[in-house]
Amino acid sequence: MSEKLIKFTNCNILRNGVVETSESLWVRGGKIVHSGGVPDAIVDLASKNALIVPGFLDLQLNGFFGHDFCDVEHIEESIDVVSRKIVRYGVTAFCPTIMSSHPEIYQKILPKLALQKGRKPDHAEVLGTHIEGPFLAPPKKGCHNAAVFQTASNGFADLVTCYGPTIESEDAIAILTVAPELNGVKTAIRELKHRNNSIVVSIGHTQAKFQDAADAVAAGATMVTHLFNAMEPFHHRDPGLVGFIAQIPEKDKSDPRPYFGLIADGIHVHPSAVRIGYLAHPDGCILVTDAISVGGVEADEFVTGGGVTVQKKSELEVVIKGTNTLAGSIATIPACVKNLVKFTGCTLAQAINTVTLHPAKCLGLSHRMGTLMPGTDADFVILDGFNDDSSEFSITQVYVNGAFAEFD
Amino acid sequence: MSEKLIKFTNCNILRNGVVETSESLWVRGGKIVHSGGVPDAIVDLASKNALIVPGFLDLQLNGFFGHDFCDVEHIEESIDVVSRKIVRYGVTAFCPTIMSSHPEIYQKILPKLALQKGRKPDHAEVLGTHIEGPFLAPPKKGCHNAAVFQTASNGFADLVTCYGPTIESEDAIAILTVAPELNGVKTAIRELKHRNNSIVVSIGHTQAKFQDAADAVAAGATMVTHLFNAMEPFHHRDPGLVGFIAQIPEKDKSDPRPYFGLIADGIHVHPSAVRIGYLAHPDGCILVTDAISVGGVEADEFVTGGGVTVQKKSELEVVIKGTNTLAGSIATIPACVKNLVKFTGCTLAQAINTVTLHPAKCLGLSHRMGTLMPGTDADFVILDGFNDDSSEFSITQVYVNGAFAEFD
Ligand SMILES: [Zn+2]
Ligand SMILES: [Zn+2]
Repeated sequence: MSEKLIKFTNCNILRNGVVETSESLWVRGGKIVHSGGVPDAIVDLASKNALIVPGFLDLQLNGFFGHDFCDVEHIEESIDVVSRKIVRYGVTAFCPTIMSSHPEIYQKILPKLALQKGRKPDHAEVLGTHIEGPFLAPPKKGCHNAAVFQTASNGFADLVTCYGPTIESEDAIAILTVAPELNGVKTAIRELKHRNNSIVVSIGHTQAKFQDAADAVAAGATMVTHLFNAMEPFHHRDPGLVGFIAQIPEKDKSDPRPYFGLIADGIHVHPSAVRIGYLAHPDGCILVTDAISVGGVEADEFVTGGGVTVQKKSELEVVIKGTNTLAGSIATIPACVKNLVKFTGCTLAQAINTVTLHPAKCLGLSHRMGTLMPGTDADFVILDGFNDDSSEFSITQVYVNGAFAEFD
Repeated sequence: MSEKLIKFTNCNILRNGVVETSESLWVRGGKIVHSGGVPDAIVDLASKNALIVPGFLDLQLNGFFGHDFCDVEHIEESIDVVSRKIVRYGVTAFCPTIMSSHPEIYQKILPKLALQKGRKPDHAEVLGTHIEGPFLAPPKKGCHNAAVFQTASNGFADLVTCYGPTIESEDAIAILTVAPELNGVKTAIRELKHRNNSIVVSIGHTQAKFQDAADAVAAGATMVTHLFNAMEPFHHRDPGLVGFIAQIPEKDKSDPRPYFGLIADGIHVHPSAVRIGYLAHPDGCILVTDAISVGGVEADEFVTGGGVTVQKKSELEVVIKGTNTLAGSIATIPACVKNLVKFTGCTLAQAINTVTLHPAKCLGLSHRMGTLMPGTDADFVILDGFNDDSSEFSITQVYVNGAFAEFD
């Protein structure tokens, strides 16, 4: 982390959600700072029509580059490799995500993951774990192992029994995805938010109807996990979670609508559904990759940690070998951002807000990331050839904590 | 029809979709005319903050005030009563709508309805018939009689056999709702549009998938019937007709998205679904009532033409007596317009466009109605206390063909 004052100048900056043109970004000591003073170095971006944007956040990442975050034995190595290599995609912070598991797995892996929280030089920051399950609805299991699913008939006590005492730590869990309609889960959410407000409760893998969503939000849920996937289809009489996101807030009342993750790979969710979800609540949209270990792997075939052979059908599509069954996402954040522009017609800046400003706000971290405001961490991405009407961009440089991150 | 030149002044005018403030509307000989000259009469609306809007169009009306347009024997009387009394709701033109019937019914009623086309003084104009069925998908029958449903394996010839020779007349049918996935229907649509382009083909009561919708549009369909109702639910992998409406048109290509009817009574379609449909394609949205004979009837219980006893549950909800089964819509256009503002947050002007400009364009009639442009028919509604941020308005006067229409 350099104490030198660096001025990036003659560039466009996506600051707090809005593009400022012909601006300068000042960096010192790993932070964005106010402009002024004599810089120790000037980076003139005049010739590139560059856009500097906050580093990308991915709130749902199961693994990448052949590493699976469910693999307890190798979790330190997996986190190290992924958090270093994912920077090439502009990702400067993420939530390692663990699918439904036995309690003993959580109790082994959560303390390990708590120790990984934070950042190493040139690595993306680990924001805390996103735990999906096991308090999920069996008919909406997706590719989870429903045999470990449970209800919370004892309320919060069942969460402690399942995840162990780290449920009360601020370092272990960032996001907890639950199905609020299950017995005891709403009570458990309320108690959890009371005891440890740092955890974001997200509604997912659920049969929640509109009213369940309202009740979950009243209990403290502030997010929906991968909108459209693993939930009730949108029905025009009870439009469920999608309808809950699509409601119009009443005047002079606070907006009840949660943030929502959305897999904009064009495969898990049809482009028109991506557009419907985004238009319904643009400020709540958070693109996530939900990517698995197969992502970023060069080979066309790959054996997963679970021993399943999968094969790539296209750049964004991977299936269980010999079938058409999706084996999970291999999307990257930049690919999803480009898709959002293409599928919805939003501007590039609006699309980038869904992986910077919105996830930072959702996690209560916008004082520190996602905005490029003075005082926040100097995690940012330089895109060349900025044209807000085009979905195209290329990442030319990534800075983590104020330092240029090498990647090839 | 008066040859006097009348100037309505100091009012706001919704002209061609946009509110013009402090304007004047000039009327002569039943037409909107260009401003200028010495008026024979001046109507000063300064004290009322009035908004003059085009007369409302309802493209799907099965009956009202106790009259059912399926009743062949009384069709002349039904049309006369409804077209006179519906003016109180600001409706100045509509499509009488006939549900799926036996061919002999169509062949009796269509020539009679063709004679009703046009207008009488103080009556709403009859725009031609909206025929729903019988080329519909049995699993999406709604309250149609599926026993009369058929496919079109002989293409256009089956349409002639069913509806009779009036299928080639410009006076009988304005809109034909069909399920394009049925055998022969796409071929029939193509031939129909070739022979009689005045008929709008609408996709409804259908299991159409996204690709079926694309094929139907390629064959000549330009509308979707009551979006969300009687079609495949929106699925995030094949989002069907809703997804087809929600797609983003490719740059530099013509917009493939059809117009779509929408029942915004808040009962047939959940408010969030109304919002999703509207946001997906605001310029394609056409509110329809799809109202039945029970609408506008004072009694709380009513025996329909089919002998079914129905009862009112609320102002907009009518069920088969002793059940919770919806018996049909009893909505009015003004109630639906107010709902659209409430459910979506659009402006009142935008909501009124969905019952004026959009249906006029859909039927190819915007040279004559729906815009208040000079040269069009002087069918208009004066709303008092205009506030574009409020869903509230009251109809104080309705003019049909330039003449003040008495109602009460
Ligand atoms: Zn999931
Ligand atoms: Zn219908």
